[in-house]
Amino acid sequence: MTSDNTNSLSIGAYILLRLKQIGIDTVFGVPGDFNMPLLDLIEDDAELTWGNNANELNAAYAADGYARVRGMGAVVTAFGVGELSAINGIAGSYSEMVPVIHIVGTPRTASQKSGALLHHTLGNGDFDVFFKMGSMVTVAAANLTLANATAEVDRVILAAYTNKRPGYIALPFDLIHATVQVPVELPLLDFAASKNPVQVQEVAVKQILSAISEAKHPVIIVDGAVIRHGLQSAATDFVNRAGFPTFSTMMGKNAIDETVSNYRGIYTGAVTLEGVKEEIEMADLLIEVGCIKSDFNTGNFSYGFQNTKKICLNSHGTTIGHAEYAGVGMHELLPCLTAALPGLKHQAELSPRVMPAPIDTSSNQITHNYLWNKVPEYIAPNSIVVSETGTAEFGVANMQSPKGATFIGQILWGSIGYSVGAAVGAAFADRSRKVYLFVGDGSFQLTVQEISVFIRQGLTPVIFLLNNDGYLMEKLIHGPERSYNNFQMWDYSKTLEYFGGHLETNKSNGKNPSLIGLEAKVETRQEFENAMELVNQQPDKIHFLEVVMPEFDSPRELSLLCALSENR
Amino acid sequence: MTSDNTNSLSIGAYILLRLKQIGIDTVFGVPGDFNMPLLDLIEDDAELTWGNNANELNAAYAADGYARVRGMGAVVTAFGVGELSAINGIAGSYSEMVPVIHIVGTPRTASQKSGALLHHTLGNGDFDVFFKMGSMVTVAAANLTLANATAEVDRVILAAYTNKRPGYIALPFDLIHATVQVPVELPLLDFAASKNPVQVQEVAVKQILSAISEAKHPVIIVDGAVIRHGLQSAATDFVNRAGFPTFSTMMGKNAIDETVSNYRGIYTGAVTLEGVKEEIEMADLLIEVGCIKSDFNTGNFSYGFQNTKKICLNSHGTTIGHAEYAGVGMHELLPCLTAALPGLKHQAELSPRVMPAPIDTSSNQITHNYLWNKVPEYIAPNSIVVSETGTAEFGVANMQSPKGATFIGQILWGSIGYSVGAAVGAAFADRSRKVYLFVGDGSFQLTVQEISVFIRQGLTPVIFLLNNDGYLMEKLIHGPERSYNNFQMWDYSKTLEYFGGHLETNKSNGKNPSLIGLEAKVETRQEFENAMELVNQQPDKIHFLEVVMPEFDSPRELSLLCALSENR
Repeated sequence: MTSDNTNSLSIGAYILLRLKQIGIDTVFGVPGDFNMPLLDLIEDDAELTWGNNANELNAAYAADGYARVRGMGAVVTAFGVGELSAINGIAGSYSEMVPVIHIVGTPRTASQKSGALLHHTLGNGDFDVFFKMGSMVTVAAANLTLANATAEVDRVILAAYTNKRPGYIALPFDLIHATVQVPVELPLLDFAASKNPVQVQEVAVKQILSAISEAKHPVIIVDGAVIRHGLQSAATDFVNRAGFPTFSTMMGKNAIDETVSNYRGIYTGAVTLEGVKEEIEMADLLIEVGCIKSDFNTGNFSYGFQNTKKICLNSHGTTIGHAEYAGVGMHELLPCLTAALPGLKHQAELSPRVMPAPIDTSSNQITHNYLWNKVPEYIAPNSIVVSETGTAEFGVANMQSPKGATFIGQILWGSIGYSVGAAVGAAFADRSRKVYLFVGDGSFQLTVQEISVFIRQGLTPVIFLLNNDGYLMEKLIHGPERSYNNFQMWDYSKTLEYFGGHLETNKSNGKNPSLIGLEAKVETRQEFENAMELVNQQPDKIHFLEVVMPEFDSPRELSLLCALSENR
Repeated sequence: MTSDNTNSLSIGAYILLRLKQIGIDTVFGVPGDFNMPLLDLIEDDAELTWGNNANELNAAYAADGYARVRGMGAVVTAFGVGELSAINGIAGSYSEMVPVIHIVGTPRTASQKSGALLHHTLGNGDFDVFFKMGSMVTVAAANLTLANATAEVDRVILAAYTNKRPGYIALPFDLIHATVQVPVELPLLDFAASKNPVQVQEVAVKQILSAISEAKHPVIIVDGAVIRHGLQSAATDFVNRAGFPTFSTMMGKNAIDETVSNYRGIYTGAVTLEGVKEEIEMADLLIEVGCIKSDFNTGNFSYGFQNTKKICLNSHGTTIGHAEYAGVGMHELLPCLTAALPGLKHQAELSPRVMPAPIDTSSNQITHNYLWNKVPEYIAPNSIVVSETGTAEFGVANMQSPKGATFIGQILWGSIGYSVGAAVGAAFADRSRKVYLFVGDGSFQLTVQEISVFIRQGLTPVIFLLNNDGYLMEKLIHGPERSYNNFQMWDYSKTLEYFGGHLETNKSNGKNPSLIGLEAKVETRQEFENAMELVNQQPDKIHFLEVVMPEFDSPRELSLLCALSENR
């Protein structure tokens, strides 16, 4: 502590301090020779864990999965090679509205100024190109200097949090240990959302109440931005109070507690379950909360409303019919509306909820109809369900949600392989919650090595490898018999074994190998159910089930969506 | 054929025609819903093979490795997710001067114009962002339209070839099958390098001959750009004719035939073998051919010339002392010089060549000193040796080159994991040449899944997994005992087995599993030699050796280089 009530702090330590203050306890990434002194600081910090990912793309996916559980994530890579390997994951976080801070260790300031022909460069003296690329898929980017470091770190973190998009911080090697003066009583970052304009919001509330009072069939649809802004509880309160039939989307899966009495199912336009679709589309008033109207989230833009008045509660504004109420974000508006609602006038009208088709017992194969009806029986409350693009994400759409479950997937970005890394991040984010990973064989091949991180870190997910021998979603869209939609068959049920699950504990395998539970291949329903019994008898172990499924069998929703694809 | 002497051809077919004309017979990549109709055309073309890579980064690495053997490569990915996953590989091709054509299947032209909220987008209607990013790491980029398609395809391919840098082609989904008119007698692309200015070149030749005649100790150094421009034969002729002591660099390994009598070894500044270093640095005239003076290629910029006159023959210009001769590229200049040289005046002065330290027989461990002395005995002439960043690339530096061997590695870009994908590409590029892959355990973990492509495609490399339990190069630079420089131990010697090497042949495993040869873990020299005997008895099979090495043992050159690193 110096005489002017400031502390000397290295810039590296300052970044980590800010990350810890926002609740981050794990930093993902891969070591590289421009970032290792920062990793020293992480390793020496008792409050931080190093994610130690198998590659940078997986690390970015992990930071994304972690952020979806804890609110924010961080990943460290090295200049050029490392950051570009991660950039698809960062772009995915941008697309899907997930705040991840990407910290890149860059060459010394002096080397950059001189344009030295360093390794990990394009060899042309251009040290700005990767920063420019990073800036294009983040909401805020900073190239730190000694003078701007603390202000820029704060700016990037705040912008990422507020906008729910990733941020980029370039940290030159020589600045990691360079010191800055920081107030002894460093104020926390002010994450309070900007205040809605009071009078505009009052008018909006009045207009919404008026629209509701005039409506015969008002309905609510809750979508992904509710989850991204952490408004599940506020949205559930609103839905409970309103009592209107309430639907969610695939991206909004479990945005409200699906056990509330007026929850009616998932709406995805033409892909919606029969009965559910008719019920929502007869509405004369549609209140949309936090909507993300992407192709795969809307049944390829097949929302079917004709004469329905629409009210949209968005992150940073509200529209009522054609009128826009700028700055009236749902964060503040939702509780206002809940308090102002007359309450419950429509609840009595609800008929029994339409459910997906029950299990077809005419086969003993593990079909999607069977799997998604059966598997919820084995999933604990408060679990985290990570589902890969393709069969899994469409399979969980109408799956019964375990109470308090969090669903993680990429409906919009749709980068196959994402789920394996995301599951690692989710498992780190809350070791008290069980993680269930559903991943198809095609996607699994892109990012398989990340399985070894579960093992090394003693994380205990249940992994379902859905083996239908090929890229099924691609086959449904185009070229079902094409060779390019198939690939090498692996011995999937040896995965934990290959990645060292049974090797003896040593400095590379710090965790107890007795954490390895069941690893098996199941081909019949009986085998699946027997395996799940064993899995649930050992909740503190990691389990891997290769689930063999018919090659062309797919969840109803995926088949319908692919039939609507414009790329067939 | 239409009446005006043109043929109707789809834009997809036109691209493939141009690729085939430049000698490409394999296209790498991963299917995605914006590129599949192009894959139909590839699959249906008897002259083309689909690389069927395990992920996009590996596909880009494979295209790079292929291009290093055949002159040019191609990779197909899908918009957003696919192309960004590949972009580190493309940037590496830029850095390392390798012409790879990156073809990206993008959404329909109409969807892009309307800013539709499609999957694989950032969700903000910006369809240009990935094109901009792709442009930043390629020498030419084109967004195809019906009107510009043929001209733009030709422009990108020509620019990539001429500059030895990657090119980017965005191909909207609806244009894959859109037809263009192409002359029946379509002229081949004109790849003749631009002509050197005759008079300038004459002056340059005169000046070089004059400098040579005045020199007492002229030497030649050949570097990586000789290989990239395919001038190995011209450079060898020049070296043979000159007779001066000749050296190469790490990036220039085997740029000239190392069996020529005046070849003296590898020069890497302070990292050079004792004796070799003194011999080159005493020169009063240094003729540099195709130099790439990056940090790792020059012993961290430790070239030690004091009063040495320098002549640099570059790709597109020549410098003699301080005089620049613009446009006098080495392609034309080298044969001119060779013809003009008086010849052989210095050859008699050569002493016996300095060789690396022989095998230290005091241990039975597989040390680097042992490995790089021993392994050349088992490597066939005309082989392709792929070595990963780290111990392997520095190990091969002073390894005896098999006659006609090609060395592949990334001294400049240094993206760990590259070698596995590059070896796949190299193996596709020429099935008549044996591929030897040397990869460390740390790097292997980033891209391991690509091993399955060897198996599926019936490619038969010999893979050496150098297992020293950690990121050794990182440990030598910083944090030798840090936990972040270690990672999960895998059961490496089960790699071929896990990736399906022994599964029965079916549509996913088209090649005969009897192609699997030896898979073993070796820990002593005797085990290594026994294994290599077995390997060489089965030259038509794929072999995998996990070579256990002491944790901190490293090639002499790597230890010295890391000691010079500015990031220690």
